[in-house]
Amino acid sequence: MSESQGARAARSGTRTRVESDALGEMAVPAQAYWGVHTARALENFRVSGVPVSVHPHLVRALAQVKHAAALANGEIGVLQPHKVRAIAAACRAVAEGRHHEQFCVDVVQGGAGTSTNMNANEVIANLALEHLGHARGSYEHLDPLDDVNRCQSTNDAYPTALRLAISAALSELSTELGMLAAEFAAKGAEFAHVVKVGRTQLQDAVPMTLGREFTAFAVTLAEDVSRIGETLPLLAETNLGATAIGTGIAAEPGYAEAVVRHLQALTGLDVTPAADLVEATSDTGVFLLVSGVLKRAAVKLSKVCSDLRLLASGPRAGLAEINLPPRQAGSSVMPGKVNPVIPEMVNQIAFATAGADVAVTMAADNGQLQLNAFEPLIGHLLLQHIVWLTHGCSALRTLCVAGITANAEQLSRGAAGAVGAVTALAPRIGHEAAAEVARQASRTGAEVVDVVVERGLLDRATALRLMAAAAG
Amino acid sequence: MSESQGARAARSGTRTRVESDALGEMAVPAQAYWGVHTARALENFRVSGVPVSVHPHLVRALAQVKHAAALANGEIGVLQPHKVRAIAAACRAVAEGRHHEQFCVDVVQGGAGTSTNMNANEVIANLALEHLGHARGSYEHLDPLDDVNRCQSTNDAYPTALRLAISAALSELSTELGMLAAEFAAKGAEFAHVVKVGRTQLQDAVPMTLGREFTAFAVTLAEDVSRIGETLPLLAETNLGATAIGTGIAAEPGYAEAVVRHLQALTGLDVTPAADLVEATSDTGVFLLVSGVLKRAAVKLSKVCSDLRLLASGPRAGLAEINLPPRQAGSSVMPGKVNPVIPEMVNQIAFATAGADVAVTMAADNGQLQLNAFEPLIGHLLLQHIVWLTHGCSALRTLCVAGITANAEQLSRGAAGAVGAVTALAPRIGHEAAAEVARQASRTGAEVVDVVVERGLLDRATALRLMAAAAG
Amino acid sequence: MSESQGARAARSGTRTRVESDALGEMAVPAQAYWGVHTARALENFRVSGVPVSVHPHLVRALAQVKHAAALANGEIGVLQPHKVRAIAAACRAVAEGRHHEQFCVDVVQGGAGTSTNMNANEVIANLALEHLGHARGSYEHLDPLDDVNRCQSTNDAYPTALRLAISAALSELSTELGMLAAEFAAKGAEFAHVVKVGRTQLQDAVPMTLGREFTAFAVTLAEDVSRIGETLPLLAETNLGATAIGTGIAAEPGYAEAVVRHLQALTGLDVTPAADLVEATSDTGVFLLVSGVLKRAAVKLSKVCSDLRLLASGPRAGLAEINLPPRQAGSSVMPGKVNPVIPEMVNQIAFATAGADVAVTMAADNGQLQLNAFEPLIGHLLLQHIVWLTHGCSALRTLCVAGITANAEQLSRGAAGAVGAVTALAPRIGHEAAAEVARQASRTGAEVVDVVVERGLLDRATALRLMAAAAG
Amino acid sequence: MSESQGARAARSGTRTRVESDALGEMAVPAQAYWGVHTARALENFRVSGVPVSVHPHLVRALAQVKHAAALANGEIGVLQPHKVRAIAAACRAVAEGRHHEQFCVDVVQGGAGTSTNMNANEVIANLALEHLGHARGSYEHLDPLDDVNRCQSTNDAYPTALRLAISAALSELSTELGMLAAEFAAKGAEFAHVVKVGRTQLQDAVPMTLGREFTAFAVTLAEDVSRIGETLPLLAETNLGATAIGTGIAAEPGYAEAVVRHLQALTGLDVTPAADLVEATSDTGVFLLVSGVLKRAAVKLSKVCSDLRLLASGPRAGLAEINLPPRQAGSSVMPGKVNPVIPEMVNQIAFATAGADVAVTMAADNGQLQLNAFEPLIGHLLLQHIVWLTHGCSALRTLCVAGITANAEQLSRGAAGAVGAVTALAPRIGHEAAAEVARQASRTGAEVVDVVVERGLLDRATALRLMAAAAG
Repeated sequence: MSESQGARAARSGTRTRVESDALGEMAVPAQAYWGVHTARALENFRVSGVPVSVHPHLVRALAQVKHAAALANGEIGVLQPHKVRAIAAACRAVAEGRHHEQFCVDVVQGGAGTSTNMNANEVIANLALEHLGHARGSYEHLDPLDDVNRCQSTNDAYPTALRLAISAALSELSTELGMLAAEFAAKGAEFAHVVKVGRTQLQDAVPMTLGREFTAFAVTLAEDVSRIGETLPLLAETNLGATAIGTGIAAEPGYAEAVVRHLQALTGLDVTPAADLVEATSDTGVFLLVSGVLKRAAVKLSKVCSDLRLLASGPRAGLAEINLPPRQAGSSVMPGKVNPVIPEMVNQIAFATAGADVAVTMAADNGQLQLNAFEPLIGHLLLQHIVWLTHGCSALRTLCVAGITANAEQLSRGAAGAVGAVTALAPRIGHEAAAEVARQASRTGAEVVDVVVERGLLDRATALRLMAAAAG
Repeated sequence: MSESQGARAARSGTRTRVESDALGEMAVPAQAYWGVHTARALENFRVSGVPVSVHPHLVRALAQVKHAAALANGEIGVLQPHKVRAIAAACRAVAEGRHHEQFCVDVVQGGAGTSTNMNANEVIANLALEHLGHARGSYEHLDPLDDVNRCQSTNDAYPTALRLAISAALSELSTELGMLAAEFAAKGAEFAHVVKVGRTQLQDAVPMTLGREFTAFAVTLAEDVSRIGETLPLLAETNLGATAIGTGIAAEPGYAEAVVRHLQALTGLDVTPAADLVEATSDTGVFLLVSGVLKRAAVKLSKVCSDLRLLASGPRAGLAEINLPPRQAGSSVMPGKVNPVIPEMVNQIAFATAGADVAVTMAADNGQLQLNAFEPLIGHLLLQHIVWLTHGCSALRTLCVAGITANAEQLSRGAAGAVGAVTALAPRIGHEAAAEVARQASRTGAEVVDVVVERGLLDRATALRLMAAAAG
Repeated sequence: MSESQGARAARSGTRTRVESDALGEMAVPAQAYWGVHTARALENFRVSGVPVSVHPHLVRALAQVKHAAALANGEIGVLQPHKVRAIAAACRAVAEGRHHEQFCVDVVQGGAGTSTNMNANEVIANLALEHLGHARGSYEHLDPLDDVNRCQSTNDAYPTALRLAISAALSELSTELGMLAAEFAAKGAEFAHVVKVGRTQLQDAVPMTLGREFTAFAVTLAEDVSRIGETLPLLAETNLGATAIGTGIAAEPGYAEAVVRHLQALTGLDVTPAADLVEATSDTGVFLLVSGVLKRAAVKLSKVCSDLRLLASGPRAGLAEINLPPRQAGSSVMPGKVNPVIPEMVNQIAFATAGADVAVTMAADNGQLQLNAFEPLIGHLLLQHIVWLTHGCSALRTLCVAGITANAEQLSRGAAGAVGAVTALAPRIGHEAAAEVARQASRTGAEVVDVVVERGLLDRATALRLMAAAAG
Repeated sequence: MSESQGARAARSGTRTRVESDALGEMAVPAQAYWGVHTARALENFRVSGVPVSVHPHLVRALAQVKHAAALANGEIGVLQPHKVRAIAAACRAVAEGRHHEQFCVDVVQGGAGTSTNMNANEVIANLALEHLGHARGSYEHLDPLDDVNRCQSTNDAYPTALRLAISAALSELSTELGMLAAEFAAKGAEFAHVVKVGRTQLQDAVPMTLGREFTAFAVTLAEDVSRIGETLPLLAETNLGATAIGTGIAAEPGYAEAVVRHLQALTGLDVTPAADLVEATSDTGVFLLVSGVLKRAAVKLSKVCSDLRLLASGPRAGLAEINLPPRQAGSSVMPGKVNPVIPEMVNQIAFATAGADVAVTMAADNGQLQLNAFEPLIGHLLLQHIVWLTHGCSALRTLCVAGITANAEQLSRGAAGAVGAVTALAPRIGHEAAAEVARQASRTGAEVVDVVVERGLLDRATALRLMAAAAG
C-alpha cells in the first residue's frame, strides 16, 4: 500500500508535536498545519494515493464556508473578534491557494467527509494561531472544533463546500463547452456550401451540406451549456445551520441566516438556504442531477467524436469526407499512418464519465437515514470528471476541430451518386415509382436523374431543380 | 423462439390477402389492419414477444402525429379532403384505444422505428379505407406511404410520437409521485411530536422527531415532481418537417408550420418546433435527460424504501421504530413472519430503472451521423420504467405508507438513551468536555444529564432545557 | 395500474372458494389451482403485468425442486407415500408445461421469491389434491406448506430453482451462440481468398482477407460458448437443506443428502450441495458471474454487429465491402433504401443486457445479512436477457449472416490502394524510409510499389512478393 | 489544464535536444530518456494529469515485453548481439523500477496505446544508447522503432503488457483477499458459540451463531480468490507476433514462437500464444471478464461491509451486536461519536469498481474492426481498481476485522426473544399451529416455549431441545 505523505513524515526523522483526540495522543509533523484528526485519517485511508488537494475547487470552497461561518459567528457574538479576524485571514490564504498541499487526506475516505472537514478545521486553526502569534497546536488559544467549526457539522459544512466546488468547476466546463460549440459553428459556416450525402443507419440517405452537419454538432453541444446552467441554482442551495442531521443542534440563534448571507458575499453566488434542513442533510439528489447532466454532455461529445472519426476514416478505404489535423505519428509499425487520437481521447473521457455516473448512483442509493456516508466518493468522481470533460473540450477544440478541412472532391462524388436524392421527387411521382427509380439506379449504377427522365416521370429541369433544393 | 402473433396468423389457416413491397409479395391475414411492412417486421423481430401495444401512450401518440399530419396536408392542399377526413377518423379510433392490438411489432426492433411507423401507417390507412368503403389493402384509393405518411419520415414522426408518449406517461408518474409525497407529509404531521434519535452512518446521533423524518421523505420526493416537470417543455419539441435527416426533403412548403399547430390543438400541449432540424433528428439528448431524471427519482424512492425497511426492522432484534402494515405471510417456513414486501418491490423497480439508464446511455452513445437507430429500445425502456415507477409509487402509498404506525415506546427509549444529546450542550461546555461526558455515559450506561450535573458542568434545569429543544 | 389476472378473476362474478392465512380469509377463484398466498401476491405486486409464467424454465425448475423434495421426504419417512405420489404427479404435470398459466405472480415482486414459492406450493398442492380425488383448497388432506414445502424454505427452494432455470436457458443460448459462430466460420472459409485492407482506428492499415475477418468473428463468439459453459457447474450448486438461513432449521435428518440426489436424477445435472449453507443462502455471487458472462457475450455480439453495419455501409458513399441480405423496406420516405435492421436489433439486445447487469449489481449489493430480498428481479432480468440474446443469435444467423455476400471489386480496390502495405517492407528498408514512401504515395496517389522502385529501395519483384504475403 | 511534466520541462529553460518524426522536428529535454513521440503525446493528452507511471505493473510489463522481443530478434538473427545486450540491460533497469518517472504520458490517451508503446521504445532505446556509450537521441546507432519495436506493433506489444500487468496486480489482490477471508474465518472460529438471531429481509428470523455469520463472510470472499485465479490463464494469452492487425506483417519468421518462449522465461508465467491472432488483436473479452470478476468481488465486499455496519449500528438504538475498533473521532459536532469509517471506505471502493465496469463495457463495445482504440482507458481503470480493492482488503483486515468484538449480552437477548425459534417446532406441530404460537408470543411478548407448553403442543423439554439444536 502506498504510504501517505503525513504518515511518512510522522515516521521519518521529522520533528513532531503531540496532539490528542478522543482516541489518545498522536505525533504529527511539527511543520504540519494539520493535526491529530488528519493524522488519523492519513493512517486510515490509503486507497488512491490521491489527496483532496487534487481538487482545488473543493479546498477553496471549504475555506469560503469556514470564512463565512467565522463571520457569522462573530456577527452573532459567539466568536471573539480577534478569532474572527485570524480565521478570516487563514481562510483567505487557503482560498488563494497558498496551502493546498495541507489538504492531504485521500479522496477515497470513509466518514462522510469528516476527515476533510477536520483537515480544513485544523489547517485553518493553525494558520489562525500563527496569525495570532501562537504555536501550532496551541488550541487553547483557538480551537479547530470549538472555534473554526463553531455552529457547524461536517454534515452541513462539507456538502455545502462540495456544491460550491462543483458549481465552480461546472462554470469552467460550461465555458469550454460553449467555446467548442462556437468552433463547430464556425466550421459549419465555413462548410455551408459543401454538398454531401447524409446518412441514416450508415446507409446513404439524402443530400445535405457539411455545413449543416457541423452546425448540428454546435447546436447539440450548446444545448448542454443550458442544461449545465440549470443545475447551478440547485447547487447553490445550502444546508448550513443544519449541523448534524438538520435540526440545528449546537447552532446558535441567528447563525443560519447570517452564514448564508456571508457566503453569498464571499462567493458572489446566489446561495440560498434549503427549505427542509433534515431533507437537505441526507439528500444527494443534486449530485445525481449533476451526474446525469454531465453524462448527457459526455455522451453527446462521444457521439460527435465518433462521427468525426467516421467522417475522417480512410484515407482511401473509408468515408474520407474530412481531414483531422495530424497530431502525432499513428503507429509504431505502419509508417505514415495518422490516427484520430484527440477524438479517441474524448470518447474515453465520455465512457469514464458514464461509468462514474453508475458509481454515483450506487453511492446515492446506499445513503441511510439522516446522512449519506458516501459523499466523498460522489464529490471526487464529479469533480474529476468535470475537469476531464473540460480538458477534453479544450483539446478537441484547439487540437482537432479548429484544423478540420473538407475533402471537397470526395464529398461531391458521394452527393452525386446518392440514390436517395430521388426522395425529393417522391411527393411528385409517388413512393412506389420513386422506389423503382431507386432500384434501377442502384442496380445499374446510373444517376437518378437519368432514370427519371428515361422513364418519363419528370423533365430533366424539374428533376434537377427539386433535387438541388433538397440539400437544405 | 416465441412466434409472434402476426406470423402465427399468416401461417395458420387464416384467410389472407396479398400485399407487396420493394422485396416482393407477401400474404397478410385478411382481417389484419396492418400490411406487408408490418408482416416483414413480424418475421424479422422476434426478441421479447412484447408488442408495441404494451405502450398505449405510444400508440395514442402515433395516432395524434398522423392525425396532425393529415390535417396539415389537407390545409396546404396536398391531401384531398376525403382522405383527410378518413385518416382523421382512423386516427381518432386508434387514439381512443380501439385498435391497440394491431400495433404488434416487437418492442425490440431494428430500423430506428421504421417498422412501428409503417405499422401505424398501415393500420391507419386500412381503417381509413374501411371508412371510405374500400377493402383492406386497396391502397390505390389511399396509400399508407403516399397519403398517411405524406410529408413525413419515420425519423420525424416516430421520435415525435415517442416524446409525446413519454410526456404523457411522465405526467401520470408525476401525479402518483406527488400523491405519495403528500402521504408522507401527512404521516409527518401525524408523527410531529414523536421524539426519536436521529442516526448518521447508522450510529446514534442526536434527537429529532419521527415527524421530521417522514416530512423529509415527502420533501425529497416532491422535488422530483419539479424535476420531472422541467423535462416536459423539452419533450414537447418536435422535429416534424425534418423528414429523413432534417433537411425537409419531400416535405411540402407550409407543412412544418401547420403540423406543429395541429399537433398542439390535438394534444393540448405546447408543442414547439426544434430550432435546428438536422440536430433534432439525430439527437437523443432529451431521452438521456429524462432517463437521468427518472433514475434520480428511482434512487430517492429506493433510499426511502431502504430507510422504511431499516426503521421497521425487528420486531425484537431490530430498530423496530415503525410498523409497516402486513400485506402477506412472510415466509413459507417461519410461521408468523411478516416482511416489508412493498418497499422491497419498489427497491427493485429502482434498480431496474438505474440499469435501464445504462442501456439508454449506450444506445444514445451509439448513434451515428444523421440518425440514432436505437430509439426503439430507448423508447421501450423509458416507457416501461416510467410505468413501473408509477405503479410502485401507487402501491407504496396505498399498501404501505398509509398504514404505517409508530412504536412510541421503542422510539422514546431510543431518544432517552442517546448519548448524542450532549451535542446540544457542546456550545456551552466545549467540545472536549462534552466528549468526556459522552464517553463516561457510554461506558457506564448513565444518562447524559446525570453526568453533566455530576461533573458540575451545568445545572440540571439548563441541561434538560437545552436538550429538549434539540429535537427540532 | 393494470389489474392482474387473479385479482380480476376474484373481483368478477367468477365463482370463488375461501382460503385463509395468517392475515385472515380471502376469496380465490374456484377454478384456480393457486390459493390465498398467491391471491395476496396478486394484490400486492402489480408492477410489470408480466407473470412468472413468462419464464417457462423457472416454472419447470420449481416443479423439479418440489418433486425432488417430495421424493426425499418420502424416502426419509416424513411424507406419506400417497402424498409423495400425488405431489410427484403434480410436479410432472407442471414440468411438462400443462399449468404454466397458474404461475401468475408479477415478475417484479417483494418478498425474496416467497410469493413465487407459495404459488408453486399451492398449485402443486391443489393438483395433488385433485389427483387424490379431493377438492381444491381441502388442505387438510395435503397442505401446501406442511407437505409440498416440507423441509424447505423459499430461501433454499427458490434460488435453487432460479439456478436450474438459468442453467437451462444458458444451455439454449450456448447452442445458438455456437451455431452463430459456426455460420461466421463458414463465411470465413467462403471469403478466405478475398483480399481487403484491414483497418485500425478506422484508418486504412494493412492487407488482410475478408475470410480472416469473418473467422475472427467466429472465434470471438465461440470463446463465449466456453465462458458460458464454465458457469454451469457453479449454477448447479444448491443450498437445499438450508431452509431459512442456512442452519437447516425445520429440515429433517437425511433430507439434505436425499434431495440433492433426487434433484440430480430428475434434472440429469450434476447438482452439488453448497459447501457452506449460510453463505450459500445469502450469496448472489453466481448471478453476478452469469450476468458478467452474459454482458461479455452481448458486448462481443454488439461489436460484431457494429462491424457488419460498418462494412455494409453505403451502398455508394460507404465502405460497401459486404452486402447484408435485405429484410424489409428501409424507409418510409426514402424509396429503395435498405437498412441493417437485424444487426441493429442485436445491438439493442446487447445494450439492454449491459443495462440489466447494472440492475443485477445493485440488487446484489443491496443484500442484507442472511438473505438477498431482491433475487426475483435478478432472476427475471437474467432469464429475460438470456432469452433475448438467444433470439438475437438465431436471427442474426438465419436472417443476416447466412446471406452475406462480398463486394469483391470494392474490396480489391481498397486493398490495392492501401498505403499500409508498405509496412511489409519496413523490416527491409527501415521505418523512416518506409514512412517517406507512405507519405509520397499518400500525397501523390501513387501506388506504394512504384514509389519503392522509383526510390531504388527494392526491386519490384521483391516488393510485390513481400506485400502479397502480408494479407495472411 | 494542468500542464504535464514533459511539456513543462520543454518549455522551461531546460536544455533540449532536437528530434524529429513524421510531423517534423521538436525539442525534447536533453536529460529525458523519452523522445519526440512522447513529447507529442505530452502535448496532445492533458486530461487527468496522471502519468502511466502510476501503474508500476504496466511499466514493468512493457519492459518485459520489449526484453523478450529483443531476445527473440537476437535469436532469429534480425537484431545484432550488441543491440540485444544493450536493450536487455535497459529493460532490466526499467523493470527494476529505476526509470518509472520516464513513463509520463497521461493515462487517458487516444491512439490505442501507441504513445505508451512509443514512450517505452524511446526510453529503452536511450537507456540502451547510454549503455553503448552513445548520446541520447543518436538513433542511428540504435533506433526506438527499427530496433526496440522490431517485429512488433503497439497492437500486440501494448495489450500483452496490459495483460501481464493486470495479471500481476490481480495476484496481489488475490493474496490480500485471501488474507482477509482468513481473518474472517478466524473471527468465525472465535465467535463459534455466540448464539444470535439470524435475519432475513431485516426481520428477525431464526437462531444461528455469530460464528457462522463470520464464517460465511470468509467463505464468500474466498470464492472470489478462485474466480480471480481462473482469469489468469486467459490473461496469459498473448498476441505477440500479430503486429498491426494479426496478420504478422513486418514480423520475421520464427519471431512469434521465440518471443513467447522468452516472455515465459522472463515472467515465470505460462504465457501462451493466442489461437487466432486477428481475433486476439481486436478482442477485449478478457478485460470484460476481469472487470466482471472484479465487480463481483467488489459487490461481495460491499455487502459484507454493509452488514458489518448494520451489526455495529447503535450503540444504543441499533443492532449493536458487534463493536468495530474505533479508528478516529467520528464527528466534528457530536462528541464521542465513533463511525464505521473503514467499511464505509470499502463500500466506496466497490461502488467505484462497479462504475468502472460500465466504462470498460462502453469502451469494449466501441471497438471497431481490427482494433479497439480504447484499451488505454480499460487498462487504466482495471489497474486502478485492482489496486484500490487490494488496499481496501488490507485496511479492512488490519484496521477493522481483526479488532471486532462481540456484544454477548445484546446477542443473547436477541436470540432469546426471537419468535422465529418456533420454526424449529413446525415440523412437529404443523405450520398453522406454529404460526398461532408465533402470533401469540409476538402480541404478548411471551417466550415461545411458554406458549407452546401452555397450549399443550409439546412438553417443555422437547421444545427446548429442538430449539437449542436449531442455531446450527
